[in-house]
Amino acid sequence: MSYINNPREIEERSFEIITAEMGDKVFPEDIAPMVKRIIHTTADFEYADLLEILNNGYEKGMEALKKGKKIYADTRMIQVAVNKKALADHGIEIVNYVHDPDVMKEAKERGVTRSTVGMEKAFKDESIGIYAIGNAPTALYTLIEKVKAGEAAPDLIIGAPIGFVGAAESKVALDQIDSPIIRINGRKGGSPVVAAILNAMLYQLGREW
Amino acid sequence: MSYINNPREIEERSFEIITAEMGDKVFPEDIAPMVKRIIHTTADFEYADLLEILNNGYEKGMEALKKGKKIYADTRMIQVAVNKKALADHGIEIVNYVHDPDVMKEAKERGVTRSTVGMEKAFKDESIGIYAIGNAPTALYTLIEKVKAGEAAPDLIIGAPIGFVGAAESKVALDQIDSPIIRINGRKGGSPVVAAILNAMLYQLGREW
Repeated sequence: MSYINNPREIEERSFEIITAEMGDKVFPEDIAPMVKRIIHTTADFEYADLLEILNNGYEKGMEALKKGKKIYADTRMIQVAVNKKALADHGIEIVNYVHDPDVMKEAKERGVTRSTVGMEKAFKDESIGIYAIGNAPTALYTLIEKVKAGEAAPDLIIGAPIGFVGAAESKVALDQIDSPIIRINGRKGGSPVVAAILNAMLYQLGREW
Repeated sequence: MSYINNPREIEERSFEIITAEMGDKVFPEDIAPMVKRIIHTTADFEYADLLEILNNGYEKGMEALKKGKKIYADTRMIQVAVNKKALADHGIEIVNYVHDPDVMKEAKERGVTRSTVGMEKAFKDESIGIYAIGNAPTALYTLIEKVKAGEAAPDLIIGAPIGFVGAAESKVALDQIDSPIIRINGRKGGSPVVAAILNAMLYQLGREW
């Protein structure tokens, strides 16, 4: 059997195909790589219509990354899918508290999601600049409430919960705050999409590998 | 703000919505939960048309799980997305070698993907029964070559590489072997989809949580 077996070649060819099939859809030069990387991750061109950036989300997020601020991710999948070398090169840490024993215990006691409690734990760490939410609408609602109360001022919120109950609504609810936002409208989104957004931004910082 | 914040309630309501929107599409009783769980994970109803099961893939996979055979996953995302409690309850281990230092070194030297080399390492472990491929067409091709050569006889191959270069073709190539197969046709698939398939099967074994 004959097939391409070189990782870099596979990625380059993929992006060529995506660019060709996107046709006449045009994005700003700094945003286009993000759109293409999301499509590369999902094989789903609908994401070109679902991605929305508000309140200078891209620029504010890039500034936070340049300062080496931490990223809070609401899933372990995001953590493992973000390029480790890119994070290390720029001294950026990505944290997630959903599996911490204290978080799991408290969530059970209160009858709320681990995402909510994990999020509350994250607010106590001021070195966290970016909140990347790919799974739990509850995490996004907790964040929105905190921002509205003046108790959190994220450099960037990536709002991409996926699902059928509350996901779309939680992303609409982001309209209530004026934080920098990158969101995926509707039901779609998820951890791989969030990781693609973060990887696209990290690669814009410089990619030597 | 008012929203559902109970994890079990969210999942049950999601499955009700999915069942309603699937309309008149009917799947066998044991397969329906798998289809719905994939849609739950992706918010993409197209998967109901892309899932295909060949050579008693579902039954053979369930038998392997009942025997406590290991699962080889080609990504860490699959590993973290499969329910840990379900694995532990049934004494099943899920392994992945893509980030092993020896695998990374050899892949670089040979100029091939880490997925290929990780796969070759997995073949040496006879306690692995299920190969779950969500990312790399190269991993699937390596597997197909090995089966054709009579050097591997998996209990189940989950073939769901995602992407634009070789992914769809690699899944068509599964027609060349008569192993038990669960596959996602076309470009779509990916780690969350593979994890949804595995979780659906694990939950069929019994779910007490």
